[in-house]
Formats: sequence, C-alpha cells, structure tokens
Amino acid sequence: MKEKRQIGRGVCVVGAGMSRFGMFPDKDSKDLFIEAYNEMIASVDKGAGPEDIDALYLGNFSNDYFVHQAHWAPIIADAIGHTPKPATRTECACASSALAFKEGVFAIASGFYDVVLVGGMEEMSKCKTEEVTEGLAAAAFPSELAAGFTFPGVFGAISSVYFTKYGCRKEDLFNVTIKSHNNAALNHKAQIPFTIRDIMKQKVERARQKGTPIPTWKDEKEFLKDPKANPMVAYPMSLYDCCPISDGASCMLLVSEKMARQFTDDPLYVIGIGQGSGAGLQGSESLTSFEASRQAASEAYKMSGLKPNDIQFCEVHDCFSMAEIIDIEDMGFFKPGEGYKAVNEGVTRRDGSMPINTSGGLKCKGHPVGATGIAQLHEVWEQLRGKAGERQIPHKDLHFGAAQNIGGTGGTATVTILERR
Amino acid sequence: MKEKRQIGRGVCVVGAGMSRFGMFPDKDSKDLFIEAYNEMIASVDKGAGPEDIDALYLGNFSNDYFVHQAHWAPIIADAIGHTPKPATRTECACASSALAFKEGVFAIASGFYDVVLVGGMEEMSKCKTEEVTEGLAAAAFPSELAAGFTFPGVFGAISSVYFTKYGCRKEDLFNVTIKSHNNAALNHKAQIPFTIRDIMKQKVERARQKGTPIPTWKDEKEFLKDPKANPMVAYPMSLYDCCPISDGASCMLLVSEKMARQFTDDPLYVIGIGQGSGAGLQGSESLTSFEASRQAASEAYKMSGLKPNDIQFCEVHDCFSMAEIIDIEDMGFFKPGEGYKAVNEGVTRRDGSMPINTSGGLKCKGHPVGATGIAQLHEVWEQLRGKAGERQIPHKDLHFGAAQNIGGTGGTATVTILERR
Repeated sequence: MKEKRQIGRGVCVVGAGMSRFGMFPDKDSKDLFIEAYNEMIASVDKGAGPEDIDALYLGNFSNDYFVHQAHWAPIIADAIGHTPKPATRTECACASSALAFKEGVFAIASGFYDVVLVGGMEEMSKCKTEEVTEGLAAAAFPSELAAGFTFPGVFGAISSVYFTKYGCRKEDLFNVTIKSHNNAALNHKAQIPFTIRDIMKQKVERARQKGTPIPTWKDEKEFLKDPKANPMVAYPMSLYDCCPISDGASCMLLVSEKMARQFTDDPLYVIGIGQGSGAGLQGSESLTSFEASRQAASEAYKMSGLKPNDIQFCEVHDCFSMAEIIDIEDMGFFKPGEGYKAVNEGVTRRDGSMPINTSGGLKCKGHPVGATGIAQLHEVWEQLRGKAGERQIPHKDLHFGAAQNIGGTGGTATVTILERR
Repeated sequence: MKEKRQIGRGVCVVGAGMSRFGMFPDKDSKDLFIEAYNEMIASVDKGAGPEDIDALYLGNFSNDYFVHQAHWAPIIADAIGHTPKPATRTECACASSALAFKEGVFAIASGFYDVVLVGGMEEMSKCKTEEVTEGLAAAAFPSELAAGFTFPGVFGAISSVYFTKYGCRKEDLFNVTIKSHNNAALNHKAQIPFTIRDIMKQKVERARQKGTPIPTWKDEKEFLKDPKANPMVAYPMSLYDCCPISDGASCMLLVSEKMARQFTDDPLYVIGIGQGSGAGLQGSESLTSFEASRQAASEAYKMSGLKPNDIQFCEVHDCFSMAEIIDIEDMGFFKPGEGYKAVNEGVTRRDGSMPINTSGGLKCKGHPVGATGIAQLHEVWEQLRGKAGERQIPHKDLHFGAAQNIGGTGGTATVTILERR
C-alpha cells in the first residue's frame, strides 16, 4: 500500500446538471436524466455534445425493483444519443452514483477514455410508501433484514445509542432539521424548498381555510415537538428527521486535466476520492460511527494531502437528521460525540465556519437514491464556482469542497474532494 | 479519439476460480462466491490472501429480484474478510461481471490500486421458471417488454430473420448444440456435463426402468428433431437451443504488471478490452448482428493491435444456440451469414481451427448471469495455461484467447483478450 495514492493522470469536472427533485408521476427516468443532462451540457462554458463523450457511467440503486426495468445504462445511452459507445451501471445502494463518478475518474486516469459522462437516477415515487421501504430495506445487510429492521428503524436504533452515549437529545436533532430547511428554501431544485416557518404558516393557512382550530406553535421547536405536526416514525426519529421519497437525476462531465481547457477556463480538479465498505450493524464495533465512512475519508484525505480542517464545506449523507451528525464526526470535522454540539452552536450553518448540506441535504433537497452521490457533488460544483445564488456560502475564497455518500447501513461509503484553483 | 488506446500501466491476471454451476437449493450467493474465491486463491502460484487485495468489483444482474437482497458488494466483501476496503457492484445484465473485470483493469491501470479482486455471481434457481423469465425480461429494452418479448422470443425472432436471410435451417443449429454438449461433458464444473448421446442413453435407461416405450433415435439429430425429447420453446428455438437457469460464481485476481511476478511466473496479460452499447431490437438496423458486439470487438482489437484471425480460441455469449452463430460473426471470425457454415464444417469444434466455447458455453456450462463474464475468462485462463485437462485445445502454442459477453438484447457487449507470453 502506498502512503499517498497517485492516479495516472489528473481528472477535472467541466460540467454539472441535475433535474428538479420531487415526486413526478408524469416523468420517467429517461425524462429526468435528460433534464439533468441538458442542464449539464448548458453548463459547459465552451460547449460539449454527445460526440465528445467516450463512455457513460450510471448509478442506480434499484429501478428494477421500483419500476421493474433493469439494465438502464444502455437505455440512458440511447436516450442521449451515446449508442454504441460504452455504458456501465454501478450500484452500491444510496452510494451508486458516487461510484459512477469514481469509475469515471479511474477510466480517464487509466488513459483509456478522455471524456466521461457520469450520472445517476432513481424513480421511486411510483411505488407506495411501504413498497419503497421494503425496496430500500434490501440495501441493508441480510442479518438486519432478518431482525426486522427497515431504515427508519436502523437510524432510530443508532440515535438511541448516540443519545445514551453522548447526552444528545431529540431536541438537538431539531437544529439539523431547521438548518436543512433553511438551506433548501433557497434551492429551487429541492423537493421541500421551505423553511420550517414556511411550513408552519402553510398549516395555519390550511386550518383557516378548513375552519379547523388554528395551531399556535410559538416557534419551530414547538412545531417539531408537536406529535400531530411531526409524528413519530421510528423512535426517536419523527417525520421531519427523515428524507422524503424522491424521483430525480444528476450528472457531471469528467475530462482529463490536459483537455479541461478545451471545455472551460474554470474546471474543478478531482483531488481526492475514497471508498470503504462495512459489515452492517452486526459487524460494527460501534453504532455511532461508520467504519466505511472513516475508511473513505482516510483514502480521500491521503490522496489529496488535505486534513479535515482544510475542507471548507461539505455535503454529507443525511438520510436522517441523526446521520448528518455521525457523518460530520466520521469526516473528522468534529470529535466523536461533539457533532451535535457544533450543530447547536451554528457551526454547520451556511454562515458558520463549516457549512454542511448547503443544498438542503437529502432531507430537504430529496433523495432519489441513485442520483444522490452526484447531486451532492453538483452542490459542491455550484458553491466552488460561486453559482449557488442566494445560498452561496459567504466566504470570499472557496477552494476545497467535499461530498460524503453512504450506501445501506454503512455497507458502502465514499468521499470525494474537489478543488477550484 | 486515439487510434490505439493505451492504458496507463499494464494489468495481469494471476489467479482464477469458479464454483460449480448448477441449481443448488442448499447454497446461497455467499457460499457460491466463497467456493470460487477459495479456488482462485489456490490457483495463485506463489500465494495470495485477503490482505493483498485493495478493492473488489462484483458483477451481479439482479439478486435483488431473484432473492430480494441488494447491495451485494459489501456482503461479499465481509464474507471474504475484505472489509473495510472498497467493494463496488457493476451491472449490465448478463455482462455484469465482464464489466467488473473491466473496472478492475481501469482501477489498476489508473495507478490507484495494485491488486483487485473481480468476480460475479447470481442465485437464480430459488425462483420458479416463469419468475426467472420475467426477471430476465427486465434486462431487455422497455419497447421490447411492451411488445411482449421475453428472451426466448427475442432469439426466436432473430433466428427467423437469420434463417430467411442466409438460408440457415433449424438442423444447422443442432451442430452448435452437439458441440457444446461434447465440450461440457469434459468440464466437471458444467451444469449439464453430458453429450447429447449421454442424454439419449439416460432417457432410454429411464424408459426401461419405467416400462414405457423405449425411444429409438438413430442419432443425435434425430433426438433433437423429436418434439417430445426437444420441445419447442419459442419458434424456432427448442429446449436444447436454450441455456439453463443457473446458480454460480466466478472470480479472478488482477494485479499491476509490475507486481505480477510476486504472484506467479506465468501471468496472463490483459491486452484488449472493449465495450459497446446497443439500442435494442427496435433501434437496430439489423436483427442478425449486434452493434454493441461489433463496437466492443473493434475497441479490443484496436487496443491489442490484433486482428480477428490472431485470436486462437474464444468463449462467446451463447445464451441460445443462435446467439453463438451471430457472436462469431460479430467477432469477425466469419463473414455475416457464414458462421453456421463454419459450425457445420467443424471449424468451431475443440479440434477445429477456431475452437468456440470449449467450456461448454452458457448453453451447457450454465449461465448464472452475473457470473458469466468472468466464468468465460476462467476458461480462457485454463486453456492458455494448459490446465483445461481433457478439454484442452490440441494446439501446441496457445497465446491469444478472447471472451465475448452480451447483456440483454445487445444493450451491452464486452470483448476481452488475454495473452500468455
């Protein structure tokens, strides 16, 4: 094993796009991918088209379960005029498209291809909620399924352990939720582009229209404490601790460093990639940290030569509010047991010293699982290039942004670090 | 686009293993993979263990459909003691593990990893036949599914077109079938390790025991013409034109060329890899050739600098007898419309000038779809290293062997060329 991994040749990101995330009964996976693809093409400063692209990598978790159609890579290749060039699907549950990104980097770094389209998509909302829950549960370890766990249950159990170990309380998770909603309200692609205060107002308005009793929450925390407004899903996780069921797609254009200037004068450099695997809850020493995440972070830091405090902002895998706290600890931004304190102190807010999930995160931006990994990187792209509009991080000199993506119950994790020079 | 693709650094195969293929009600995917893995480890001349392996790539088509468990890469990683190192699944229907192989090559060629385990598996026989047919149909293009096609139907239609166009008859396909069975009878890992004559004898014996009328076929062709012995599945494809439903696993150990001698003095060199995509039957100019196959072959020939007639033997994707004929034409071994004549003349037999599917092929060795790509390369490994026992090709100087793998209705195809120096 080498001390610092070196890849054969540098790889840059020169374009990025994503569809709106949400529940779209009238759109299928092809429609969603084309929406992301068209935005990506439009984002390439000096232009690009299907003729430039040597290969496609597509992350998808389980459209074969959700819409009973498998083998999506050639379907998407055909939809964007890429046939007969290569198209490959990667799958590791909710980390599927972060792996498409990683394989795209390898394919270019190896010297085999020069320009690679990487993307992901998922079409979940055509299933009923209980079917989605069952479909996602297949991403957990067999022993977890056999014990009756579904994902809300898994993160409920993790929360209980974290609470007991570190003195965190359910109220502390509210600060994650409030922050995510505040960010998502500034993201027009988000599935839930509303602050908690917006939602409170909507509910008051609805009660007024219906003539039912007008709720009188005095602030966001009181709203989140109200079991009618925020019902329990899996103790101690309530509705607003959980990400929604989503449809969506995302993609990016990768090129060799040498060719980057043919596409833009402002490429982003892929300076760190890392990946780890985990053995599920039963195989973990601790429920309050994912070994796969620590491994992925360690690989990515090693490759980039950076340390956690060199990273200026990060998108992390907040499928549940609790996950965000564990993620920011596993990334090394905060010590174990101290992530929730940092959240309470506002450190992870957009104007804090370590902004987390400025996009709104999986929780509010949405989580079409196969699209998520590259959608996270889409936010890193927008922030680093100063194109995040109202939600732009108020920092004059952004250079290093990262994304951390988890699949299953920590069965897979990836960390990717991008640099703007 | 470069004239001849060059990868950053050379990659070698230093070990290979596969489980027995068949229907194993008492074995699950982990058992099968471990069987293949243990054989692979034993095949590495100077020894290897999990500590040597930097990353795992695992091909699987749809265990989430067949056994309702997804996210297999970390499960297999855990089973072989690989956790927390990276584990990634690739999927392109029946070409899933050929893509695991390709990504393993890229990962090493890029300089990121030195030693990569690549493999594949599928656990199909726990589903009923009609469920398997439906699960596999999800690998076809949506327009094909909508038209009511399943795979036997697709290859039935392809056969009808080929017959009309080139004057081939159903009896000509028998020669593919007879050859495959002759080869598989010498392969103890094959699911159907019997010649057609063996099967005829078994049926006569069974009739004798049961006291039913003794069949009196005078030769193999008469047996294959008998609709009781060889019933129609999808005109003109009968039972013995189709591969069986299979469980199985396969794997190989890839290392950088520089490190190969640490593992063996007799490595195989990966000199050609190619991949293509196709737009399904509706998007094809012709039903008697797969554009994806021609693209994959062209990439692999270009990279290796070889021509079709430099390849000394090949494993091709004979999910149906008809497919084998189309494959050997798409590989450029024979002109369009002449593949069946070469088969009739014995050219593709083990002792012919271009041995095809010496393993018995998918048709008789079995086709656990996610395992197939690397299982084909396992045969190339055994033949090139002179370890194929009774089915060893009787040629003194074998250097170049290839494998061609198809996913879906030509949605994906790969070609891989290995060299022994």
